[in-house]
Amino acid sequence: MTSPSPDSPAELTLEEKASLTSGSATWYSTAAGDISRLMLTDGPHGLRRQQEGGDNLGIGDSVPATCFPPAVGLGSSWNVDLAHRIGEALGREARAQGVHVLLGPGMNIKRSPLGGRNFEYVSEDPHITGRIAAALVRGIQSRGVAATPKHFAVNNQETDRMRVSADVDERTLREIYLPAFEHVVTEAKPWALMSAYNRINGTFASEDPALLTDLLRGEWGFDGVLVSDWGAVNDRVASVAAGLDLEMPPSDTDAEIVDAVNNGTLDEAVLDTVAERLRLLAARTTDPALATDPVDVDAHHRLAADAAAEAMVLLRNEGDLLPLDPAADARIAVIGEFARTPRYQGGGSSRVVPTRLSGALEEITALIGPENVAFAPGFSLTDNPDTAAALTEEAVAAATGANRILLFLGLPDGFESEGFDRDTLALPAGQLALLERLTTLNIPIVVVLSNGATVEVAEWASSVEAILETWLLGQGGGLATAEVLFGLASPGGRLTETIPLRLSDTPSFLHFPGRDGHVGYGEGVYVGYRHYNTLDVPVAYEFGFGLGYTRFDYDDLAVVPGTDPHTWLVSATVTNVGERAGSEVVQLYVGTTENTPTRPAQELRGFAKVHLVSGESERVTLHLNARDFATWDAGQHRWRVDAGAYTVQVGSSSRRIHLSETIAVPGDDWVSELSEYSTVGEWFAHPVGGPLLQSVRDRMEAFAAGGAPELLRMVEQVPIIKLVSWKMGLTLERVREMVAFVASQR
Amino acid sequence: MTSPSPDSPAELTLEEKASLTSGSATWYSTAAGDISRLMLTDGPHGLRRQQEGGDNLGIGDSVPATCFPPAVGLGSSWNVDLAHRIGEALGREARAQGVHVLLGPGMNIKRSPLGGRNFEYVSEDPHITGRIAAALVRGIQSRGVAATPKHFAVNNQETDRMRVSADVDERTLREIYLPAFEHVVTEAKPWALMSAYNRINGTFASEDPALLTDLLRGEWGFDGVLVSDWGAVNDRVASVAAGLDLEMPPSDTDAEIVDAVNNGTLDEAVLDTVAERLRLLAARTTDPALATDPVDVDAHHRLAADAAAEAMVLLRNEGDLLPLDPAADARIAVIGEFARTPRYQGGGSSRVVPTRLSGALEEITALIGPENVAFAPGFSLTDNPDTAAALTEEAVAAATGANRILLFLGLPDGFESEGFDRDTLALPAGQLALLERLTTLNIPIVVVLSNGATVEVAEWASSVEAILETWLLGQGGGLATAEVLFGLASPGGRLTETIPLRLSDTPSFLHFPGRDGHVGYGEGVYVGYRHYNTLDVPVAYEFGFGLGYTRFDYDDLAVVPGTDPHTWLVSATVTNVGERAGSEVVQLYVGTTENTPTRPAQELRGFAKVHLVSGESERVTLHLNARDFATWDAGQHRWRVDAGAYTVQVGSSSRRIHLSETIAVPGDDWVSELSEYSTVGEWFAHPVGGPLLQSVRDRMEAFAAGGAPELLRMVEQVPIIKLVSWKMGLTLERVREMVAFVASQR
Repeated sequence: MTSPSPDSPAELTLEEKASLTSGSATWYSTAAGDISRLMLTDGPHGLRRQQEGGDNLGIGDSVPATCFPPAVGLGSSWNVDLAHRIGEALGREARAQGVHVLLGPGMNIKRSPLGGRNFEYVSEDPHITGRIAAALVRGIQSRGVAATPKHFAVNNQETDRMRVSADVDERTLREIYLPAFEHVVTEAKPWALMSAYNRINGTFASEDPALLTDLLRGEWGFDGVLVSDWGAVNDRVASVAAGLDLEMPPSDTDAEIVDAVNNGTLDEAVLDTVAERLRLLAARTTDPALATDPVDVDAHHRLAADAAAEAMVLLRNEGDLLPLDPAADARIAVIGEFARTPRYQGGGSSRVVPTRLSGALEEITALIGPENVAFAPGFSLTDNPDTAAALTEEAVAAATGANRILLFLGLPDGFESEGFDRDTLALPAGQLALLERLTTLNIPIVVVLSNGATVEVAEWASSVEAILETWLLGQGGGLATAEVLFGLASPGGRLTETIPLRLSDTPSFLHFPGRDGHVGYGEGVYVGYRHYNTLDVPVAYEFGFGLGYTRFDYDDLAVVPGTDPHTWLVSATVTNVGERAGSEVVQLYVGTTENTPTRPAQELRGFAKVHLVSGESERVTLHLNARDFATWDAGQHRWRVDAGAYTVQVGSSSRRIHLSETIAVPGDDWVSELSEYSTVGEWFAHPVGGPLLQSVRDRMEAFAAGGAPELLRMVEQVPIIKLVSWKMGLTLERVREMVAFVASQR
Repeated sequence: MTSPSPDSPAELTLEEKASLTSGSATWYSTAAGDISRLMLTDGPHGLRRQQEGGDNLGIGDSVPATCFPPAVGLGSSWNVDLAHRIGEALGREARAQGVHVLLGPGMNIKRSPLGGRNFEYVSEDPHITGRIAAALVRGIQSRGVAATPKHFAVNNQETDRMRVSADVDERTLREIYLPAFEHVVTEAKPWALMSAYNRINGTFASEDPALLTDLLRGEWGFDGVLVSDWGAVNDRVASVAAGLDLEMPPSDTDAEIVDAVNNGTLDEAVLDTVAERLRLLAARTTDPALATDPVDVDAHHRLAADAAAEAMVLLRNEGDLLPLDPAADARIAVIGEFARTPRYQGGGSSRVVPTRLSGALEEITALIGPENVAFAPGFSLTDNPDTAAALTEEAVAAATGANRILLFLGLPDGFESEGFDRDTLALPAGQLALLERLTTLNIPIVVVLSNGATVEVAEWASSVEAILETWLLGQGGGLATAEVLFGLASPGGRLTETIPLRLSDTPSFLHFPGRDGHVGYGEGVYVGYRHYNTLDVPVAYEFGFGLGYTRFDYDDLAVVPGTDPHTWLVSATVTNVGERAGSEVVQLYVGTTENTPTRPAQELRGFAKVHLVSGESERVTLHLNARDFATWDAGQHRWRVDAGAYTVQVGSSSRRIHLSETIAVPGDDWVSELSEYSTVGEWFAHPVGGPLLQSVRDRMEAFAAGGAPELLRMVEQVPIIKLVSWKMGLTLERVREMVAFVASQR
């Protein structure tokens, strides 16, 4: 708690201070004294500033803004520079609209592909999530607008999201669900952060002082304003006391705060701190020195389209069918309602009204001429069985005579949204039936997928020549899709989430989304590829995978120790050995091997996206530090580096490792203490403690030799204090003497 | 807390009462006043009364006693009557030796096949565990000796067993780790019970009042003496206060109890209750009206052998190779050290000195004559690579000219024991190499396995004709094996634990045995077949499986409602349609189907073992009650029956369901309360609450129709109180009125 600065918070009345802890309206903070009112607005992938007089649920019409690819697409780009440029554009649009605080980026971990809001999140992996989110934050804030990473924390499902307790162990929190936030807070320093709706181990995230104050502000140094998710506050006083600054939207209960101060249950200094934080946020977001740039709508649209090309993941491309040749492949059947009615973003609070929007059909037609395109919708977005037969026949007719079918499949709008989770990974049955029918025509098929989260592809993948996973691409997606299909751009994306063979292979299948107010995180740290790759579960397409229009060779791995024992420089040379320019995502994993695993077999610890023309090489250097080898020790509540052999893996996906080297990493300098509850085995192994126990060891070996060979292994597991009552010649006093002696030798 | 009876506890001094809370020696309780000293002795499958002057670790030599099949074998018999008869025999031997309290049965759940003490436990399933254990308890206590079910609770591994915290959610405790104890306590009423070494969710099992008092004594009605596992007490006062009666062995710290009473931290009435319980235990175990029968060593040996035949599981029998015909198959090569040196029990506190012991080699030789048997050990128990080649060639020589090879493989003594866990399911490499070599001789091979817990068989199973899994069979195992192999007895066992294809398929693989003082029970209720069968994971041999020497047909399923809405009588007719007499284990499962499971796909809810001669039929009737359809609701902390369709499955294994019927089961009569935190969806669905919200529903539908189709599904997840700040026309006062109104209508 900082003490109030002398000039201003003291001038506020208690009621004014209390008023600061909630908004003044759905999208505004409260002004008091010298602290100005700030506008907060949805929009991790585009501004959603509601029209005046809009509904209070915050879902209705908003002012048009550039709709960039949602996080599922932007994350797939693995392009940190791109994320920064989009952040700048978001900041520019926000500032032009008078918005002070942008509510994004979304950065929860995609624990299950069923998560209804996965399209707003980056990945199943915290490393890539943290890097993409940090770049967005830096970009947004460079324009004087606060970014608001969300939802802190462990908000991985929509089912029962406002009540459910995410029951997750400490190590899993530290290794999976917190590191992306940790990275963004410590590296990008956001000016605001949003707390989540859900409970964590029984305590509401918005009321947990260990999370909001000890960890976030204390350990990580967050100095911004902590705002609740809209409606996430359940106990005003508890949340303010826990470290939450701003309840949104207001619940008209500020009197509870006043009462709490008056009756002594809340320290008024907490309110002074809230006021200071809001004052700082206002200062940061109303910087008069920073110009409000005009928004170039065309340039932002082009940026959105470029980002869309970087986001698409080419999963399959038999016989290099793609890119299509506008000349040779020019009789194109475009099938699928999504070509005409693009699915370009998800539902809920992130739904943007775009500044413009074109579908792939329109852009393909513009590119190759209407005379070369035959279109049929093929299916209805409602998967209406009554019209299916007619639509299928119309599609077959359109395809007949074409030499390529571009088949646009995906999840219609109502299938995934903020607010509810899916319960299947399947595409709608009508689309699958259409696909099967079209494969009988023996015309090469390119499936173009639009979906906010993973769908099953394994059952039909081999029946088509190419699959382009476009996720949700924002308003430039139609243009980008046309450009990628016809080779004016390359598909630059790589999977940030595994595409499993079937739903029941997913690591959280038996736990998600829980019941009775609880969701157990039983898979622990084995989320996404950490599960599949540790257990060797076959998948459709693995984490990190994606094809391009060219090929890359990897050579000359060098793993060089840095200046301290746990830092390493990992370098490799990547060469474009194909015929076309293209991009590659060089991925760095750290791996271990254990008979019964105590950690994932491999974890992403670095990446770099390179763009190379044909024949060009680049030497990529990535860094590893102690944390990259560490796991969280839940017994000692600290990061711990175990000494041992670690494999440094460089590849183009988590399963396509082209270069690797095993290095010996020293343990950290933690010297284990010995206590009464340290086991005999731990004592035996200890340089000081071991010799003290020689007589005990002798007695045990004598017993073991006398016909109980398992005795030694058995006793190694026993805390030394237990030997006292086993009459092994050790008294409690002697044990305590030994513990003290070992401690004295540290 | 009961008040002291007037005549005796009051006569004890505080020091005497305190002395009762720990033993007077390693195997004796303390005498005080009218309360006599009692002898406690290891021995779930046979008495292990230590010789006077033995070591204090309790592992050394003991008085000879009949070594019955350990729990892994007895459980596989699925024979409750047999378990009762063995219990009687154990009680008879105990009483003859002056033993008052027998420390068994072991009844922890086999969470992982790696568990070092699995051979002392019955199954991966609580239903069969509870029934076998209850029969043992009844049998033991019928002879005036106290049974001591153990280890209460959640003691599922040996690694770090004296410190580790089993971190397990409430529902999993209630559905998997507690029900067997619940059954044995409520149905068989043991006079004693043993607390476990480990912690549960951070609290030592021996110090947890919620477990030891509220649940065990309060909810389940346990009225016996709760004794610690040897050395399981860490805090004397806390354990006594929590409900533990007797610390064993004594730690000479009774003064702590006296001090605690004197300084007011422990209520002396707790000690009076301990005294009462010990007095009751003494009365129960020194009943002068009950005769001390003489022990018929021969009869008990025959019982042990009969039990052994009932325990063996015939996994494979291509071309009905078994049983062997002493005439036609009479040139037998017996290969494998285990034929000569039987592995018949496990290591640790349960190791019995048998009254007699014969190996299978000896018994086979006696049965068919030495001229028909060629023996070679084939491998050394230490898997010594130096002697492997010579032993293999000797085995090949012995097999040459034989028309059958009986190959005895298994886990040597040092591979599994109390005190440590395994880290592989593989047989020793030398044995596998021998097996491979012998298969090249093209002589039919019967593999006879001796192992205390599951080993991998899938890689070699198809290269042999027959596999007889004999687990650990006790002292009569050699005789029984000879009898079964040559058809004088039938293999009566069925798997009580799944044999997986590989270790990494096991449900706890990524969690077991934990680290840093914690082991997460991440697989939750999906233990054993509940995992494999819910996820359709292929296995080598499924739970419940086992062949016999005859075949059975299943007909005429009838599922008839009982007298209350949740009781059903399930009847089926089983007919021996083969040529030989044999036994069958009729298994009853209750199944459900869900797209994303919230409960196991099927669970064992009943079984019956029938013995039928050729052509004979039996009508088997099993009972289902509400609990058999229930799951534990961790939100409301109660058993809950969900209304719905349940499949009643009758079969010969969990995957060989021969008869099934789907029944509609009503939900229990719990009427859900509605609260401020009930969701809009829960309100809409409620008969009283729904109509109150009609205006809200109308407003939402209007918004949804206005362009946000996902809105309705989204809002259904929202607690009604959240609508207050969303300005949906609901005030906090109105919400509270509605809650009160709904409550008034219950």
